[in-house]
Amino acid sequence: MKEHASASATAPPRTAPTRDPSAADAADLDASTRETLAELRRQLAEINNVDGALSLLDWDQATYMPRGGGPARARQLGSLGRIVHGLRTSPALADLLARLRPLEERLPPDAPEAALVREARRDFERASRVPTDLAAAFREHGAATFSAWMVARPANDFASMRPYLERTLELSRRYADLFPEHVHPIDALMEEHDRGTTLALVRSIFEPLKPELVALRRAIAARPAPDDSFLYRDYPAAAQLDFVREIVSTLGYDFERGRLDLTHHPFMTKTSLGDVRITTRVDERNVERALFSSIHECGHALYEQGIALDFEATPLAHGTSAAVHESQSRLWENLVGRSRPFWRHFFSSLAARFPEALGGVDAEAFYRAINKVEPSLVRVEADEVTYNLHVMIRFDLEVALLEGRLAIADLPDAWNARYRDDLGVEPPDDRLGVLQDVHWYSASIGGYFQSYTLGNVMSAQLFDAACAARPEIVPELESARFDALLGWLRENVHRHGAAVPPLELIERTTGKRLGIESFVRYLRTKFGDLYGV
Amino acid sequence: MKEHASASATAPPRTAPTRDPSAADAADLDASTRETLAELRRQLAEINNVDGALSLLDWDQATYMPRGGGPARARQLGSLGRIVHGLRTSPALADLLARLRPLEERLPPDAPEAALVREARRDFERASRVPTDLAAAFREHGAATFSAWMVARPANDFASMRPYLERTLELSRRYADLFPEHVHPIDALMEEHDRGTTLALVRSIFEPLKPELVALRRAIAARPAPDDSFLYRDYPAAAQLDFVREIVSTLGYDFERGRLDLTHHPFMTKTSLGDVRITTRVDERNVERALFSSIHECGHALYEQGIALDFEATPLAHGTSAAVHESQSRLWENLVGRSRPFWRHFFSSLAARFPEALGGVDAEAFYRAINKVEPSLVRVEADEVTYNLHVMIRFDLEVALLEGRLAIADLPDAWNARYRDDLGVEPPDDRLGVLQDVHWYSASIGGYFQSYTLGNVMSAQLFDAACAARPEIVPELESARFDALLGWLRENVHRHGAAVPPLELIERTTGKRLGIESFVRYLRTKFGDLYGV
Repeated sequence: MKEHASASATAPPRTAPTRDPSAADAADLDASTRETLAELRRQLAEINNVDGALSLLDWDQATYMPRGGGPARARQLGSLGRIVHGLRTSPALADLLARLRPLEERLPPDAPEAALVREARRDFERASRVPTDLAAAFREHGAATFSAWMVARPANDFASMRPYLERTLELSRRYADLFPEHVHPIDALMEEHDRGTTLALVRSIFEPLKPELVALRRAIAARPAPDDSFLYRDYPAAAQLDFVREIVSTLGYDFERGRLDLTHHPFMTKTSLGDVRITTRVDERNVERALFSSIHECGHALYEQGIALDFEATPLAHGTSAAVHESQSRLWENLVGRSRPFWRHFFSSLAARFPEALGGVDAEAFYRAINKVEPSLVRVEADEVTYNLHVMIRFDLEVALLEGRLAIADLPDAWNARYRDDLGVEPPDDRLGVLQDVHWYSASIGGYFQSYTLGNVMSAQLFDAACAARPEIVPELESARFDALLGWLRENVHRHGAAVPPLELIERTTGKRLGIESFVRYLRTKFGDLYGV
Repeated sequence: MKEHASASATAPPRTAPTRDPSAADAADLDASTRETLAELRRQLAEINNVDGALSLLDWDQATYMPRGGGPARARQLGSLGRIVHGLRTSPALADLLARLRPLEERLPPDAPEAALVREARRDFERASRVPTDLAAAFREHGAATFSAWMVARPANDFASMRPYLERTLELSRRYADLFPEHVHPIDALMEEHDRGTTLALVRSIFEPLKPELVALRRAIAARPAPDDSFLYRDYPAAAQLDFVREIVSTLGYDFERGRLDLTHHPFMTKTSLGDVRITTRVDERNVERALFSSIHECGHALYEQGIALDFEATPLAHGTSAAVHESQSRLWENLVGRSRPFWRHFFSSLAARFPEALGGVDAEAFYRAINKVEPSLVRVEADEVTYNLHVMIRFDLEVALLEGRLAIADLPDAWNARYRDDLGVEPPDDRLGVLQDVHWYSASIGGYFQSYTLGNVMSAQLFDAACAARPEIVPELESARFDALLGWLRENVHRHGAAVPPLELIERTTGKRLGIESFVRYLRTKFGDLYGV
């Protein structure tokens, strides 16, 4: 399904480490076990090295590769994907893991060696479960679907995508069937990105959240909208990039261990813990685009740059799940980057760079403009209130498709009906409707969308916990000091990498299970103040 | 010795193809042979794909990788190097090659399938001859030596490099011993980069060439030197890069299949035939540096961009040797880029970009300045006349070292003595002497330097043949039309890739064996005119 390691390609420890799992503690191991562990680390490093090369091939393709490199790049990605799959499922690795099982069972689950062996075993077992022909089918069908979508989307041609999506649905179901221990097919798919997350859990979050969002959206719709016309004036690209670099650098992004480049779609990737790259796109008629996508990707990168360096070249050297990753990107993008104190500090610097566009605008007006709530058709451009309604529509449709209650042929109608009901808008065409997101057109239906909203919910719960522990966090935003916030996140989230599974991490760091209270309070307070509702 | 494929990782066909070896001609092969050939191509493509990834890892390290990525990048290069070595020497490949031997013996040697199998076999056999521990020793010692040199060179500390060089010499000899079929150890080392080239051949070129060069240098020294002070005025970087892009693009470099970036040391690399990249460096106080290094790398790239696309992902998709590669880079850099007609066309464009630096200078004065002959200490900055004397010094010292006639401890004295005798200059320190070139400090003594001078000699012989076949070539330079020249090179050199071995290629395309006549005539004519000698 997934061709090489991402943030989530690792497994949950059965209980949480209560001490730093990066601290080596092999003194009480015999020489033969130490040697076996060293060989395991060597083989894991080999996997990690090829994964790093794959990340670079991807990054280069999106940034600097000349057009003529395309066909060979696809072959290179295919070869390295096969090679790393071979390493990931090799008999030699199976043998090492078998020899280390007694150790894993003897050690306390929070011992660093136990976490390492457990994560390695999970990765091995999941990779080994996928037959070679299914992996190849995902790869080939994924590439074919994506190419077809690149043509069909601008042509507003859903009909041509129907056979592709039907095949995608079939492959997604076959993949889910490989993991019959999961109650629902979407659980098996979510396990790949958000381990431990079930349909029941997602529903326990989405069901109470949705009416809150709908109510807030309706209340706001009855109030006058702020003026945001100045966001769409002339903003020369070079000055935007200069400002973006200042911002992410001030937030704590380490340019010695990363870089910022331009791509069509912004993303974060890493070739190693010492090389965590972000990308952005610039729209000279929209000052929000580069700015907030950069802060978002910076949030992802701060997470990866904060992982304990002892984890380097092991399966622990990744964010623990897609949702926790989104919690970091959305926390910096929204709770920090769209906050009033943040702009009390940074607005003058922005206005100095764009005196014409922002003449006569003040920090408060800018703050109101970037937080305008308006139901829209496109998820990636949605405000903080309506964004999660977009996500819920996709998630519910995925569940219905996987359960066989909805046919691909009926997907556009179902999509449009939900937009009418939940957001009060109707797509004029499929281009702005069911064809908009890449996810379903990359050979996977189900498993990812939930992470966006779970991440938003987590971001508020984490921010509350951080502010409770370090009350200076919010006051310091106004003087662009982020040490207390970043320090708390590093200590409680980032450094643990994938050693602590996502839901347990949230519970440990916030003192309670994942719930919507913080997020709802955050939205009500912020938008209540902004709109007087 | 070499960790992944370069231009020269391929083998000489026993006789030359007399028809296009890229033309498929498998009609008379039985189904089983066709299947074996297809499997061979598949395995060769896998090797090629990993080599492409290795090239990208190297390129990125030299261009955009943040400093923090260094340690992991070394590991990634190591892993992929081991993986590709494993593929290159795999029993599966051995088996295929054994099954294809009857085909290879049955087909005429110029059949495309015969060339493919032969090149694949040579690559396999050479790679298989190198024991794993020696390959690892080269890799590790190479990295250690290079790091030590990076410190020792600025510190002018040859003494600290002595043990490294002694080990390098030992490893180079051990490598040569693996190929006892060669008469002289340097023959075994040269075979890696310039197959078919022997010490006897190099001497047959260098021995008559050296007195010609020394005589010309002496004659020129007695004449007044042209003014070149304007080359060292202020040349803003952006305008230099803009001009360089115009030049290489006009020469025929295809930016759809390549790109130009900045690096500390300029180079050409490719990830596939569709992605051939060049790099340059800019010195704002020296207009020659970016300009001529770019034309030089462009010459290498035109060669690779001109290889028959049918060869893609096979061992034929490389330039045929280091010397032939240098013949292409030096032809464009010197015979074209430092010619009078070239600057009759381009000088006005250059002067328009740098009106202050070039105020009062005309095309003829510029032409004279960039062709100033002056014995100097540094090879890479040498003029066309003295450049080859630098190369001969290094080559002779390598032979003496490999034969045990010279000890590493005596190398600086031997170096300085030769500079005094051959060039009439004496290095004030080892930094400008024996420590200057990276080659010996990358774990190899012997095998490469000869290619620079052989390339220069080839460039003139090829250019003469091209002009004889297409008399419009030189007149067209003045109007910046390079189609006739590039077309002739494409047809006679580039498209053949590694299918024709270097010395045979020269003989076929020029109608005579490699000799110094063209090069000596070129130098005498050009510098005779410039200096009145």
